[in-house]
Amino acid sequence: MIIEAIPARPEPTMSDAHPLDPFFTPRSVAVIGASSRTSSVGYAVFRNLLFGSIAGTRREDGFPGPVHAVNPKGGELLGQPVHRDLASIGAPCDLIVVAIPPAFIPDLIDESARHGVRAAILITAGFSEMGAEGHALQEEVARRARAQGIRLVGPNCLGILRPASGLNASFAAAAPPAGGIGLLSQSGALITGIISLARQEQFGLSAAISLGDKADVADQEMLDFLAADDRTKAIALYVEAARSPRAFFEALRAAAAKKPVVAIKGGATAAGARAATSHTGSLAGSASAYAAAFAQAGVIQAQTVEELISWSRALALQPPAAGDRIAIITNAGGPGVLAADAAFRAGLRLAELSPATHAALDAVLPSVWSRQNPVDIIGDAGPERYAAALDILGAAPEVDGVVLIMTVQAMTDPGATAEAIARAHANPAWTMPIVCSFIGLIGTDLGRYLDERGVPELDTPEPAVRAMAALVARGRFERRTRTAPWDASALPAPDLERAARLVAEAQRAGQRNLDLARARDVLAAAGLRYNESGTAEDGDEAAALAERLGYPVVVKLISPDVLHKSDVGGVVLGVIDSDGVREACDRIRASVARHQPGAVITGFTVEQQVSGTEIIVGTSRDGDFGTLLMVGMGGVFVEVYKDVTFRLAPIVREDAQAMIEGIVAQPLLDGARGRPRLDRGELAEVLMRISDLVTAVPSIEELDVNPLVITERGLVAIDARVIATAASGQ
Amino acid sequence: MIIEAIPARPEPTMSDAHPLDPFFTPRSVAVIGASSRTSSVGYAVFRNLLFGSIAGTRREDGFPGPVHAVNPKGGELLGQPVHRDLASIGAPCDLIVVAIPPAFIPDLIDESARHGVRAAILITAGFSEMGAEGHALQEEVARRARAQGIRLVGPNCLGILRPASGLNASFAAAAPPAGGIGLLSQSGALITGIISLARQEQFGLSAAISLGDKADVADQEMLDFLAADDRTKAIALYVEAARSPRAFFEALRAAAAKKPVVAIKGGATAAGARAATSHTGSLAGSASAYAAAFAQAGVIQAQTVEELISWSRALALQPPAAGDRIAIITNAGGPGVLAADAAFRAGLRLAELSPATHAALDAVLPSVWSRQNPVDIIGDAGPERYAAALDILGAAPEVDGVVLIMTVQAMTDPGATAEAIARAHANPAWTMPIVCSFIGLIGTDLGRYLDERGVPELDTPEPAVRAMAALVARGRFERRTRTAPWDASALPAPDLERAARLVAEAQRAGQRNLDLARARDVLAAAGLRYNESGTAEDGDEAAALAERLGYPVVVKLISPDVLHKSDVGGVVLGVIDSDGVREACDRIRASVARHQPGAVITGFTVEQQVSGTEIIVGTSRDGDFGTLLMVGMGGVFVEVYKDVTFRLAPIVREDAQAMIEGIVAQPLLDGARGRPRLDRGELAEVLMRISDLVTAVPSIEELDVNPLVITERGLVAIDARVIATAASGQ
Repeated sequence: MIIEAIPARPEPTMSDAHPLDPFFTPRSVAVIGASSRTSSVGYAVFRNLLFGSIAGTRREDGFPGPVHAVNPKGGELLGQPVHRDLASIGAPCDLIVVAIPPAFIPDLIDESARHGVRAAILITAGFSEMGAEGHALQEEVARRARAQGIRLVGPNCLGILRPASGLNASFAAAAPPAGGIGLLSQSGALITGIISLARQEQFGLSAAISLGDKADVADQEMLDFLAADDRTKAIALYVEAARSPRAFFEALRAAAAKKPVVAIKGGATAAGARAATSHTGSLAGSASAYAAAFAQAGVIQAQTVEELISWSRALALQPPAAGDRIAIITNAGGPGVLAADAAFRAGLRLAELSPATHAALDAVLPSVWSRQNPVDIIGDAGPERYAAALDILGAAPEVDGVVLIMTVQAMTDPGATAEAIARAHANPAWTMPIVCSFIGLIGTDLGRYLDERGVPELDTPEPAVRAMAALVARGRFERRTRTAPWDASALPAPDLERAARLVAEAQRAGQRNLDLARARDVLAAAGLRYNESGTAEDGDEAAALAERLGYPVVVKLISPDVLHKSDVGGVVLGVIDSDGVREACDRIRASVARHQPGAVITGFTVEQQVSGTEIIVGTSRDGDFGTLLMVGMGGVFVEVYKDVTFRLAPIVREDAQAMIEGIVAQPLLDGARGRPRLDRGELAEVLMRISDLVTAVPSIEELDVNPLVITERGLVAIDARVIATAASGQ
Repeated sequence: MIIEAIPARPEPTMSDAHPLDPFFTPRSVAVIGASSRTSSVGYAVFRNLLFGSIAGTRREDGFPGPVHAVNPKGGELLGQPVHRDLASIGAPCDLIVVAIPPAFIPDLIDESARHGVRAAILITAGFSEMGAEGHALQEEVARRARAQGIRLVGPNCLGILRPASGLNASFAAAAPPAGGIGLLSQSGALITGIISLARQEQFGLSAAISLGDKADVADQEMLDFLAADDRTKAIALYVEAARSPRAFFEALRAAAAKKPVVAIKGGATAAGARAATSHTGSLAGSASAYAAAFAQAGVIQAQTVEELISWSRALALQPPAAGDRIAIITNAGGPGVLAADAAFRAGLRLAELSPATHAALDAVLPSVWSRQNPVDIIGDAGPERYAAALDILGAAPEVDGVVLIMTVQAMTDPGATAEAIARAHANPAWTMPIVCSFIGLIGTDLGRYLDERGVPELDTPEPAVRAMAALVARGRFERRTRTAPWDASALPAPDLERAARLVAEAQRAGQRNLDLARARDVLAAAGLRYNESGTAEDGDEAAALAERLGYPVVVKLISPDVLHKSDVGGVVLGVIDSDGVREACDRIRASVARHQPGAVITGFTVEQQVSGTEIIVGTSRDGDFGTLLMVGMGGVFVEVYKDVTFRLAPIVREDAQAMIEGIVAQPLLDGARGRPRLDRGELAEVLMRISDLVTAVPSIEELDVNPLVITERGLVAIDARVIATAASGQ
C-alpha cells in the first residue's frame, strides 16, 4: 500500500535553529511505555537512554539530561521512578519516545502538547503497514500532531541516536562512537548493522536516524537537518523508495551542494526490488531513475555496505581532492601493485612524480625504493621513513591525494607509524586528502587513534583507493563549472507551440503512437535537424529533388502494394548523381515488374543518405520521478550493453554534458575509424531541446530519436517515435 | 631482467611423500645467521621459530622440534646456544633458514649436504635482482643444491609458515591461526598483510609460502605440493608474473582439478603492470592471458584482497554448491535487500520457495515474515528461529546454498545464534554450503567460533553473497561435462598441410601480411566457410556467376585506377536477380565514365551478400603463454566494449564453449531483432579449427577472421588477416 505524502511544511529557515532540533538536542526525554519486561522495546529504549546501551550500567554513559519513565502501572525501573503519566513528571519534556500500542497514541499526542512536548519518536509498529484501519489511525496521529505543533518521527522505526549528545533514543543494542557521518536509513536493521561495524571498526557517527513509516518527518526534511547540522560532515543514506521522490531529489540536491552525500539504493536489481517490495510494502523505485537523481544531485552512489561506510568515512574526515592524480606510499610491493590496479579501475591516475619529488625522495629513502609511484619505501620502513615520504608527497604539486599502505612486517612499528602519520597530517602545510590501509589492523586501537585524528583507516588497499576515488569525485563535483552555451544558429529554431499543436492533433485523431511523419514534425518543431527527404512521381522529378538534397541519396519505392521494399529490389542505396537517380527509378520499376508484377508504383522517396555513428536519445515516464531523459549508443547494441545514461527532466546544460560524459563508448563519439566526430555541445543542445519539449508538452509520454546519426554536418535524426498520453479532449 | 627457468624436475609422484615435505614437516630446523641484533632478519627468524612470533616469549608457541641457532660468532641467543657451524650442532638438520650474505651461501650448501640438510629457505636478498654478478651467484647456488639433492626456496623471500605444525620459518611478525587456506604469494608483504587479517578476522591457513626469486622451487611445484597437501582445502594465489607460464598453467590446471584455487593477478591493469614491473624486476604478464589461463584451468579469479580471502575462506570450509539457487535468511530487511541485489549482480538466482517450504516456514516463523526469499525472520529473531529456518531451507530441494545474515538488534543473542547455526550445520542431514554475515562482528570471538566449526563468517552481506557465488562457480566447474561433438559435415574438410604450404609460400614470397586471397585460402584450408565470390569480365558473365552464387549479391568494380570504389559508384549492393546484375554492371560503367573518365574497368567482382551479426575470431602471440585464441562481438564496437574472451591454444571443445558463454552479448547471438541465430556448436567447431590451424602451422603469428557473420546458412567468414613469422627459409 502506498501512503500519500503529507503536504509539505514551510521551507525551514537558514537560522541556527532547525525545526527538527528537538529530536537531537532535547533538554529532557520521557519514554512512554517504559517497561520492566526485559524483552520489551520499552525496556530497551529506557535502558538505552539511561545507560547509552542495553548492556550499559553507568548513568554517565547515557543521556546527560533527565530521562523519565512513563507507564500507567507506575513503580520503579532501573532505579528510576516510573511516572503514571506525563503530568506526574512535574516538568516539561522536550522529546518523548513512544512504545505503547497504536490505539493510545492519538490521545497521547494531545496530552503531550499540554506538557511541553515538541517532538515524538514513535517506535510502535502496527499503523499503515496493517491495512486501512492502521492507515487511518496513522493519519489521525499525524493530524493531531500537526494541530498541536508536535513533530513526529516514525511510527514503526528504530529511533534516533545522537552519539555526541549521549542520546540513544532507539532500541538499537548499542551506540556507535561520535563522529562526522550522518546516517539516514530506510532500514532500521541496517542502522543496527552499521552501529556494530562502527563499534568494531572505530568510526564515528553524528547521527543515526530511522524514519519508519514517516507519518510526519520524511527523508527530505531530515536531509535538510543533516545538511545544516554542524556535527555532520558527510551524509550516508540508505533508500529503497522515497515517499515523495521529487521532493527527495530536491533535498538531495540541496544537501549535496552543502556537504558530501553517499547513497545506496536498496532494490537496484530485479531480485533486490522484489525483496524491497516485500520489505517496505511499496514498490521499489526504478534503479535508473534513482541513479539519475543521485548523479544529477551530486550524490555519490555506493553499491555495497562497505562502500557506503568507507566512502562516508573518507568524506567525513578528509577534504575533497583537487584532482585525480594520487600517490601511493607502501612498505609492501604486492599490495602497492593491487592498489595501482584498483586506482586504474576506479578511474584515478597515478601521479607522475616530478624530478624534484623524485630527488627529494631519493634523499630520504633507501636506494632500493621503487623510484616511481607507487612509492615503495621497502619492508623495513619505520615511522620516520613514512613521515619523510608523506612530507614530500604532501607538498608535491603533481599529487592530489595520498593512499598510504602498511603491512606489519618484522621491523614495522604500527603504533609509531600511526603517530607519524597523524603528525604529518596535523602539519598546517598538509592540505590534500589521505586515506590509509593498515592491512588487518582495522579493529585495533590504531584504527581508532587515526580516526580520531581525522585519518580514515581501511582494512585492505582496494577499499582505501576507492574511498580516495570518492574524494576525487566530490572534488570534481565541487569544481564543476557552468559551461558556455553552444552556438545553436545552425539548428532549426524550436517552435514548441507548434509541437504541442501537433501532439494535440494526433491525440484528437485518436493517434497515441504518432505516425512517422508527425513524429518527425514534432521533433523538427523541437529544433532537431532531420535527414531531408521528399517524394517524387518519376525519375526526373526524383533527380531534381536529389540535386536539392545533395548526394549521396537513397531512392525508395512508394507502393501501397509492397510490404518489404528490399524484397522486390525497391531500395537503391548510395546514389551519387542525377543520372544515377533516374537509373535507380528505372531499375526499381523493372525489378518490381519482375518480382511483384501488377504492384502499383505511386512514386519514389528520395532521402539524404546519412552514415555515421548512431546515437539514441529518448524520454520515458518514471512512476516516481516524472520524465527521465536518456542518451546513449544506438543501433543493435543498445539493449545488450546498455551504454546509456539518464537524468531527470528538466535538465540544465551541465546535466546534458554529464550525460554525454557518462557514455562508455567515448572513442566512437570521438570518431574512431575515420567516422565523423561528435560535437558534444550540439548533442547537449539537442538533449536540452528534448528536455524543453517534454516539459512544455507534458502530453508526450514517451519519445525516442533512434537513430540520431553523427554526420559531418552535425547530428541528423533519422527515425523517431512519439507516444502521447490518451487524448484528454484539449 | 628476466631469469630463465631452471629446467623442470621430474614429475612428483603421487605417493604420500612429496619432495617439498621437508619445508613443511622438518624434524629439526637451524637458522644460519641467527643474530642478536633485534632489527636483523636473523633475529626475527630465530625468534619466530622459537616462539612462533616476534612478540612471542613461550617456547610452546614455537616450533615443537629442535631449533638451532648458527652463527660463527657463537655465544647465546634467547637462552639458546649459538653454534659456530652446522657441524657443531652434532645432529642432522632437515631444514635450514638462511640469513647470511650471498657470497657465503654456495659453500654453505656444500656444508649443509654433509649434515643431512634436505631443504633450505634462503631469506637473503642480493642475488639476481642485483645484476649479472648476483645472477651468476644464484645460478651457482642452484647448481650446487641440485648436485647435493638439497631443495631451495628463495632467495629473497619472506619464508614459509606452517601454522598447524607451529612452524614459522619466516620473518613475518606473527603467525596466522591454523586452517585450510594454502597461501602462495609472489609478494611476501602481501603474506604479512594476510597474516594480520587472519589474526584479526580469525580465519586459518594451512601454509603461507613466499618463493622469492625461485632459484629452485617455482610456483608450479609448490602448487603441486598444496594440491597434494591434506591440510590445504583451498589454494589462494597471488601472482604478478609466473617464471614459466606454461608450466604454471599446467600446474594450475592440475591443482584446480583437485581442489578450489582462487587467484589474484597483480598488475592486471596498465597502472598495476607498471608498478609490478618495478616490483618484480620483470614484465608483468598480460592480463588477458592470465585471465584466460585461470578460466581454462578452473581457477576462480579475484580482483581484490577481500575477494581473495573471502572466497578462499568459503571454499576451504564449505562444499561447492550444487546449483545457483540460493536462499537468504535475515533478521534485517535492508541488509536482506542488499544481499538480493548482490546475488543478482553475482549471477546467482534467489531460490523460488516451494509451497512445501513456504508452509514449513509459516509453521515456525511469526506471521509477519517476508513470505518470500530473502526469508526475513524479523528483527526479534532468536537462535531457535534461525535454527528452524536453517533446518527447513537446508532440506529444501529448491535451494542450493544459504546466505545467513544477522544484525545485532535489541533482542538478538549473537552467541546463542552462532551456536544454533553450528548445530544446524553439524547435522548430518546438512549438505549444502552456507556463508554467514554477522554484520560488524567479524573480529569478535563469534567469528572464530564459527570459523572453527567450518562456517565462514564475513563482515557485510555483499561479500558473503559473493563468497557463495564462488562456491557456485566451483560447483559448476566440478560438474562440467564433456559435450557431444557437433556434426561438422556441412563445413569444408580441413587440409592443414595445404594451409602450411600456403603460409610457407607467402613467407618465401616475402609476404608476412598475407594478401586477402591467400589469407582466405589459408582459412578455407583450415575448414572455414567463406562467402563465395568470383570475377567476371562483363554483365552476362557476372549474371551467370550470380546465378551460381545465389542472391542477394554485391557487384563491385575491378579497376586498377580506382582507389575508393564507392566514390565513383563502383559498388552496387542488394542485387536480387540476373537482370539486376547486368544493370548493375551497366550502371557501374556509366557511373565510372561520369566520375572518373578514362579509368580502366577490367571486370566485376560478384560476391554473395551476407548480413547478420558480426563476430570476430582471432589469435595472437602472448610473450608468456604462447598463442591466445579470441572470440567476441565484431564490428565497430569491438574496441570499445571489448566483449571478447580468450583461451590459450590448443583448446578442447569445452574451452570453446566456455569462450562463447563468456561473451556478454548473448541476446545478439540468439538472434535478437529477427537476425539469424548462432549455432554455438558450429562456432565452437570453428574455434577448434582455428586452434588446430595455429597449432599445426606455428609460423602463423597472428590471425583475424573479422567479420565472421552469423547467417541463415551458418557462419560465413568475410574478411581475414593472417600474419606469418618472418621467413625462415623452410
